Amino acid sequence: MLPDLDLFKEAFRRYAAGVSVITARSAAGEPVGFTATSLASLAAVPPLVTFNMALSATSWPTIAETDHVAIHLLGTEDVALASRMAANAAHRFLGEDWQEGPHGLPVFPATGVLIAQIEHRQPVHNNAVVVARVIDGTLGEQEAPLVYHERAFGSFRPLPN
Amino acid sequence: MLPDLDLFKEAFRRYAAGVSVITARSAAGEPVGFTATSLASLAAVPPLVTFNMALSATSWPTIAETDHVAIHLLGTEDVALASRMAANAAHRFLGEDWQEGPHGLPVFPATGVLIAQIEHRQPVHNNAVVVARVIDGTLGEQEAPLVYHERAFGSFRPLPN
Repeated sequence: MLPDLDLFKEAFRRYAAGVSVITARSAAGEPVGFTATSLASLAAVPPLVTFNMALSATSWPTIAETDHVAIHLLGTEDVALASRMAANAAHRFLGEDWQEGPHGLPVFPATGVLIAQIEHRQPVHNNAVVVARVIDGTLGEQEAPLVYHERAFGSFRPLPN
Repeated sequence: MLPDLDLFKEAFRRYAAGVSVITARSAAGEPVGFTATSLASLAAVPPLVTFNMALSATSWPTIAETDHVAIHLLGTEDVALASRMAANAAHRFLGEDWQEGPHGLPVFPATGVLIAQIEHRQPVHNNAVVVARVIDGTLGEQEAPLVYHERAFGSFRPLPN
């Protein structure tokens, strides 16, 4: 058994993840956000979620301070948003496809949008695990889920019977 | 906007997640384990992962006490294991498809197996967020990733160009 970085990376390349976009409003009033492949449900009662981020992320200073985030669950129609929110931070909110939602949060159209209050930030080395409680939300168009695997976006396919 | 349980559940039904099986050895020496759809990478350097569980889970008393877990990243060939490790806890280790790995951990064949040391357990209401550091691992056969969506197992499909 080899405890090396290549093995860790290759193991996670073989894994798949759902795709979300998490946004917030900075203390200076600017919209910030990023694409996450770590969003997970923690509990339904009360409705809790977790997501992970690096302390070096451009959005971290805002997530470290803010009370609220908007969590966008993405479908296949939202793949351009997923790509944009993972690229140059200066270009993420230049379009007119978002509007101001509850608590001033920037909200994009998505198959699901959850408004959440941050309950806990756990620092771990140069990263943080964020726990948030869902307090509001809307459903958009029903879409096939967006899935990330092998550094590419795709979707879900049922297994053959 | 409706902050209700149905909306939260419907939003996550529209989401997809990778599938893993997490195992450990209880203080009494028994193998324990469960299927998780919350496993996420936290960092590559050092190699860290997170997963979530309910404090009511049959495996929690072991995860609360043990130092090490085996994290199995599942592919489509492992779907029967995913189903079994999500069903009756008394039947999960009755087969002969597992063996003892590092630290006495029960290890199943899977497309990726990571041996990890638990670094942190964050209680949140009736749940826990677990942070673990990967210290060892093996790769199995290359497989298409197992994906969970709409209460069913499936896999990844690329988007059409």
